Amino acid sequence: MDLFSDAPSRDPRASAYLLAAYIDEFPAGNVFLSVVDPGVGSERASLAVWVDRRWYVGPDNGLFELILRRALTPPRIWEIAWRPDRLSPTFHGRDLFAPVAARLARGETAPVTERTSGEGRKPDWPDDLPQIVYIDGFGNAMTGIRAPRLGYDTELEVDGLSLKWAENYSRVPPNSPFWYENANGLAEIAVNMENASEIMGLRVGSEVAIGGVE
Amino acid sequence: MDLFSDAPSRDPRASAYLLAAYIDEFPAGNVFLSVVDPGVGSERASLAVWVDRRWYVGPDNGLFELILRRALTPPRIWEIAWRPDRLSPTFHGRDLFAPVAARLARGETAPVTERTSGEGRKPDWPDDLPQIVYIDGFGNAMTGIRAPRLGYDTELEVDGLSLKWAENYSRVPPNSPFWYENANGLAEIAVNMENASEIMGLRVGSEVAIGGVE
Amino acid sequence: MDLFSDAPSRDPRASAYLLAAYIDEFPAGNVFLSVVDPGVGSERASLAVWVDRRWYVGPDNGLFELILRRALTPPRIWEIAWRPDRLSPTFHGRDLFAPVAARLARGETAPVTERTSGEGRKPDWPDDLPQIVYIDGFGNAMTGIRAPRLGYDTELEVDGLSLKWAENYSRVPPNSPFWYENANGLAEIAVNMENASEIMGLRVGSEVAIGGVE
Repeated sequence: MDLFSDAPSRDPRASAYLLAAYIDEFPAGNVFLSVVDPGVGSERASLAVWVDRRWYVGPDNGLFELILRRALTPPRIWEIAWRPDRLSPTFHGRDLFAPVAARLARGETAPVTERTSGEGRKPDWPDDLPQIVYIDGFGNAMTGIRAPRLGYDTELEVDGLSLKWAENYSRVPPNSPFWYENANGLAEIAVNMENASEIMGLRVGSEVAIGGVE
Repeated sequence: MDLFSDAPSRDPRASAYLLAAYIDEFPAGNVFLSVVDPGVGSERASLAVWVDRRWYVGPDNGLFELILRRALTPPRIWEIAWRPDRLSPTFHGRDLFAPVAARLARGETAPVTERTSGEGRKPDWPDDLPQIVYIDGFGNAMTGIRAPRLGYDTELEVDGLSLKWAENYSRVPPNSPFWYENANGLAEIAVNMENASEIMGLRVGSEVAIGGVE
Repeated sequence: MDLFSDAPSRDPRASAYLLAAYIDEFPAGNVFLSVVDPGVGSERASLAVWVDRRWYVGPDNGLFELILRRALTPPRIWEIAWRPDRLSPTFHGRDLFAPVAARLARGETAPVTERTSGEGRKPDWPDDLPQIVYIDGFGNAMTGIRAPRLGYDTELEVDGLSLKWAENYSRVPPNSPFWYENANGLAEIAVNMENASEIMGLRVGSEVAIGGVE
C-alpha cells in the first residue's frame, strides 16, 4: 500500500464514487482535473463537464457518472475537440486535460462539441457501491456507500464479520472493528488503533454486504 | 512502509519527541497545525499553545509536551472553545484545528479559555525517548534521543547489536550499521547504502538502549 | 515500493538517466536542485552546472553526467566554495544546495570556482542505460534507454521474457506485458491493467537486454 496503490488505480467505477464524495466543499467555479484513465490512447472521448457550477475535466469512462447522476441542476457535457501539438499516447493528463483545465480556470474556452445524447452514461452502475473504494494511510477502508443511506442499526458485512456502527474510534475498545460515517459522508470501516485493511484483508474492490437489523 | 505508516500513527508520545526536533528552523509567529489524534471525538480538549513566539494548534493528548517542557520562556496554553457549524466526529484536523490555525496565522483570535493548571501535562514522560520515533524513506530509523545528550563514545543497542557513533555514512564501510546525529539533532540509526529498518527489523516503537563506554 | 524506494535511492548513475529525461519541458533559467547523495559529508565536491540555459545544483557524483553529455551548447561547471554557518554532515540538500539554488533563482551569485578540467565526468557510463531506473506508483518500470534509439521492432528482454513494442496500454490485451515510449521519451515496461514490477519481479537496477529483430 502506498500513496498510489491505495487509490482505485485503473478503476474508473470505484473512483467515480470516491470523487463524488469529495466535491461538496469546493467553491463554485472550481475546476476538477480528474484522471483515472486505463484507456488512455484508445478511442475514448475526452470530456469537460459542468455540474452545479463546477467544472470536471477528464476521460469519458464513467469517472463523472455519479457526479452527473447526483446533479442538483441540469448538467452539461462537452467533448473536447482541441488537441495539443504534442500528445503523448499515454499521458493525456499532462498533455490534454491539464491545458484544457487551465483554460477553463482562466475563464477561457477550448474547442468543444456539446454532447446531448446519453452516450457514455452508466445507467447500470448502482447509486451506492457496496465495495471498498479507498484505503487510507492508516488502513481505514472507505466504501462507496453514502452513510446517511444506512441506519445506525445497519451492519456492514466484510471478511465474514458483521460490523456495527459507532460514531468514531473513541466509542469502541482498542482492536475493535466498526463502521462509521467518515468526514466526507461515506461509510468507512476501521479497527480502533489498528490497521483495518491489513487485519481484515481488505483492498480496493473488496465486497461489502449491507446487513439487516438484528 | 509508506508516507504515513512510517510516522508515529496513533502515538502522540512518539510524535511529541519528533515534533520537538523540527521546530527550531521556523520563524517567530509560525503556526504549527499538528494532529496525531487517536482520541478524536472523545472528550479530550483542543489546544492552542504559544511557546517561544510560535503557535501550536492540536489535540490535548501530550503532542506538545516536549515543546512545552523545553520552552525558553513561559508558555501559555488555551483550550479552544470555538466550534464550527459542522464538526466531523473523526476529522477535527479539517473542521476545527485548521480554521483556528488559519485565524491565528491571520492575527485573528478565536474563542478560547486560558489553562493555568498543569492539566494535560505528562510529567512521567522522559526528557528523551529511547525508542524509534520515525523511519524515513531510506529506512533510516530516528530515535527520540537528542544526540548532543550522548557522547561520541556512547553505543546504542538495538536488535541485539551495539552501534557506535560515526559522523555520517561516508565514515563507515558499506553495509555497516552505526548511529549519527541527524540534521535535526536526533540520534539516528542507519546502515550505509542499505535499509536499516528492514535489515534490523526496526519500526516505530522499537526500544533503543543507551550503552556505556566499552 | 513507496514514494521514496521506487526512485534510485543512493544510485547517482541510475538517477542521472532519469533526471536527463525530465528536463526538456522546463523553461530557460530554471534551477534544478537535484540531490542523490550517498557520499554526503565525504570529500566529494558540490556543483553548480549551467547547461542550455538551465541551472543544476547538487553533488559531484555523476548525477549531471547525462545532462552534460547531451548538452546542445558548451556547458559550464563551477565548484561551490560557499559554506553555510551551519552545515549538517548528512543533509547538504537543506544546508548547502538549497541556499545556493535559491541565490541562483534570484539572479544572485555564490562563491564558486570554475572547473575547466574533465574532473568528475563519467566517460565509462553508457549513452543509454539498459536497466530499470524507476518504478512508478502503478508498477510500470522505466528504463534508462531513450525509446527513439530503439526501433518499433526491437524487443526488450527482462525476466526471461521478450517484450514487443506497443503504442500504449489500449493496444494490448489485459495482462499482457509490452514496452512503449513513455511520456518523457524513455522506454518503459508495463503490463496492461496490472502491476508489471510485481509480476515480473522488477526493481531499480534490474537489467534489460535489447533484443534483435526476430
